[in-house]
Amino acid sequence: MPFAPVTDSIVRELCAICGDARVIFGDASRLARYGRDQVPEKHLHVPPEVVVMPGSAAEVQAVMRLANRALVPVTPRGAGSGLSGGAIPVHGGICLSMERMDRILEVDTANLVAVVEPGVVTNRLDEVLKPLGLFFAGYPMSEEVCTLGGNAAHNAGGGRAVKYGVTRRYITGLEVVTPAGELLTLGGKRFKDVTGYDLLGLLVGSEGTLGIFTRITIRLLPRPRYRRSLLVLFDGVQPAIETVPEIVIKGRMVPASIEFMDRISFQEACRSLREGIPYQRAGAAMLLESDGSHEAQVAAEARMMESVCLARGPLDVFAADSEEESGRFWKIRKQIPWTLKTLATHSSIEDIVVPVGAIPAIIGKIQALSSQYAVRIPVFGHAGDGNLHAHPLKDPGQTEAAWYDLIPRLLSDLYRETAALGGTISGEHGIGSKRRGYLRLVMDAGQIELLRKIKNVMDPNGILNPGKIFD
Amino acid sequence: MPFAPVTDSIVRELCAICGDARVIFGDASRLARYGRDQVPEKHLHVPPEVVVMPGSAAEVQAVMRLANRALVPVTPRGAGSGLSGGAIPVHGGICLSMERMDRILEVDTANLVAVVEPGVVTNRLDEVLKPLGLFFAGYPMSEEVCTLGGNAAHNAGGGRAVKYGVTRRYITGLEVVTPAGELLTLGGKRFKDVTGYDLLGLLVGSEGTLGIFTRITIRLLPRPRYRRSLLVLFDGVQPAIETVPEIVIKGRMVPASIEFMDRISFQEACRSLREGIPYQRAGAAMLLESDGSHEAQVAAEARMMESVCLARGPLDVFAADSEEESGRFWKIRKQIPWTLKTLATHSSIEDIVVPVGAIPAIIGKIQALSSQYAVRIPVFGHAGDGNLHAHPLKDPGQTEAAWYDLIPRLLSDLYRETAALGGTISGEHGIGSKRRGYLRLVMDAGQIELLRKIKNVMDPNGILNPGKIFD
Repeated sequence: MPFAPVTDSIVRELCAICGDARVIFGDASRLARYGRDQVPEKHLHVPPEVVVMPGSAAEVQAVMRLANRALVPVTPRGAGSGLSGGAIPVHGGICLSMERMDRILEVDTANLVAVVEPGVVTNRLDEVLKPLGLFFAGYPMSEEVCTLGGNAAHNAGGGRAVKYGVTRRYITGLEVVTPAGELLTLGGKRFKDVTGYDLLGLLVGSEGTLGIFTRITIRLLPRPRYRRSLLVLFDGVQPAIETVPEIVIKGRMVPASIEFMDRISFQEACRSLREGIPYQRAGAAMLLESDGSHEAQVAAEARMMESVCLARGPLDVFAADSEEESGRFWKIRKQIPWTLKTLATHSSIEDIVVPVGAIPAIIGKIQALSSQYAVRIPVFGHAGDGNLHAHPLKDPGQTEAAWYDLIPRLLSDLYRETAALGGTISGEHGIGSKRRGYLRLVMDAGQIELLRKIKNVMDPNGILNPGKIFD
Repeated sequence: MPFAPVTDSIVRELCAICGDARVIFGDASRLARYGRDQVPEKHLHVPPEVVVMPGSAAEVQAVMRLANRALVPVTPRGAGSGLSGGAIPVHGGICLSMERMDRILEVDTANLVAVVEPGVVTNRLDEVLKPLGLFFAGYPMSEEVCTLGGNAAHNAGGGRAVKYGVTRRYITGLEVVTPAGELLTLGGKRFKDVTGYDLLGLLVGSEGTLGIFTRITIRLLPRPRYRRSLLVLFDGVQPAIETVPEIVIKGRMVPASIEFMDRISFQEACRSLREGIPYQRAGAAMLLESDGSHEAQVAAEARMMESVCLARGPLDVFAADSEEESGRFWKIRKQIPWTLKTLATHSSIEDIVVPVGAIPAIIGKIQALSSQYAVRIPVFGHAGDGNLHAHPLKDPGQTEAAWYDLIPRLLSDLYRETAALGGTISGEHGIGSKRRGYLRLVMDAGQIELLRKIKNVMDPNGILNPGKIFD
């Protein structure tokens, strides 16, 4: 792709569109901050040539018209909290940071929707919704930092997707700027729509490669009044993970959360938090949660989950009834990726997903790969959806060269095992730049070619977030 | 579009692919049966030149390769129970009837999915799932006749979508034959997937214009153990319809069903069923239902809905606790479209959807249009989703010419009012051939052009189900 460089004249045009103070150029350290996201692989980081911070859809349109004319690549950016390199401008060019478009435009209680700009941090919307007794149920676990635009672009999932599904289920409307700078209005506040092809659904999860979201309409649900959380410690991985299909199938219920943490994940997170729970003996832990607006039902679901666990001989069962108490359990779970990153100079955060019944099998495969490659691979994640974060960690005794030689082979093996179990390489983080080389392991050439053609329909010049999804 | 006619040589090739007994040719009365669906507008019916009934994906591929080479249009067909002319071969050519591909291939209780061929009638799957305590929650109200392939092609909705959503939410995997005869495998038994663009989501609801489904994987949920249904009679439309936003918003809950029936719909359905309920005084009725696996919660939700209704002074409240008793209420609701069709020689079954808070407003607009055009427009449907079936009926005193002059103007006005309230022209029936001329009323030219280009990516020769969605 013969992209053009960002010239002084382009920078002047960007300043004219958004204002001088909204353009970062020539300042390497500030630019570098826009060249990374939360992928731990530093070699994937690439700074943009210029950062521009539009304040309106009209400004986004003007930037895109300029870029499309000049053939300069544009990489949209939310919070930079992604885990696939999706916001990294791998071909340089313009970083389109949505940080200024952070208004909650409307909370429409008559229609049970919120209308927001893409730069709104997920938890900020939640704070507004809480006193109204409403919530956005599709939020991911990075809710303190991630933005709603990024969530929509990645079709983010989270810790409650077992019951509530992921982001796409809740997006009823999108205002989108196309790569050519046109404004599209898709959907709205209505909950059903089969008028033409589902362009809205196609754009959600397109990783910022098909259009830039400038306004998002989100369906709200009644906020559950009650929740009951269980933290169950087991002496090993198998009894813990075998509860997952059992809760879902024998329990005949759809709890809010079924989270799994293996020994390293759980113990290291507890240790870093100086947690008082006797975590030292635990070989694995499950965080199970039911919620709802009817107290007795929530309690009954929790009892059912507890009884499934008790049949497997857990070490300990801790229960929490309030948001505060369950917050303690979730703090451990949320701490895991942060702690794991500190355990090694190099690591990879994986995001495989398998059919829920294959969860015990994939855990076994990961353990085998860990032995085969002599690499620790802690595993944790949304087991109730079949979505697990395996996290290979470089051994301190290993050279960097050995790690970079090993990790593509390890990931290829992991992905092949995942595919063989009917799974795929990303459940919620996306392909981005990190996994684009592996797409062909789970998708045939004909299908990849169709996706490329759809990309070409929306972005004939290929200027929007190039170097993502496709190799 | 310069389509080629079906020649004797093409018929011979079709016989060679599927067997002579699977091809209908030259028999006008048998062909005519494949030239209609459930749209009441007989002038929309067009017979195919030939019908072919493939028995496998390989046979579908062979038919499509032939048609794509010969430039003969192909119209896929499920049960023919659609309401938008989607299965009508408006350009003649080949009707690809999926009636023989009707096997339930697998009910996988370990992964909570069913794998079916497209010709399986919805209720037949339900009968298999019932003893297993599972169900497919996205089924439409024509479940006794509609096929799962048709449901998926239209992203069908139904009477429980308030709580459970529509078909797309439950489809995790599709095997698809493209217009060129290639086989695509999308998704699988996994519940989350963000690997590349959501081609599966794009195909669901594409009305048989982008590909032919030969295998469908459906996510199953635990079957609710308890249900409680309320049939509430009001003396007028307004008090009935105003309960809708109140239940959803003030009630802070998501019941399974919130169905509305206006006076004509309710009374005529009751009359045709010789219903014992004192329907004669009712100006409107609501069918409300809660379900779940916890009896007390189901009862509490029903009480909440009842109290919202009682505050509006209903004429009568009837409650049902068992599937059998509630079946009586649903029988009335399901009878409506059949009864309304008998009330006039000409009618139109509409499928508008508005934001749920705009439900009372659109009812007012429909009443005004009814007066303005001097046409009865009974209204019923899935009020809890904002999805209403308005059903204009030709007056016996009106000439056919007057009706055909009036109905496009009436529909245009109805659609414009719907769009002005943030709604659109189809919530679950689709655009098909019936509404293609009206698409531009709710979608701008740029967006329609994008949809056309996506169609062109999948079907460069435009042979698959032409004359649908686009004008």
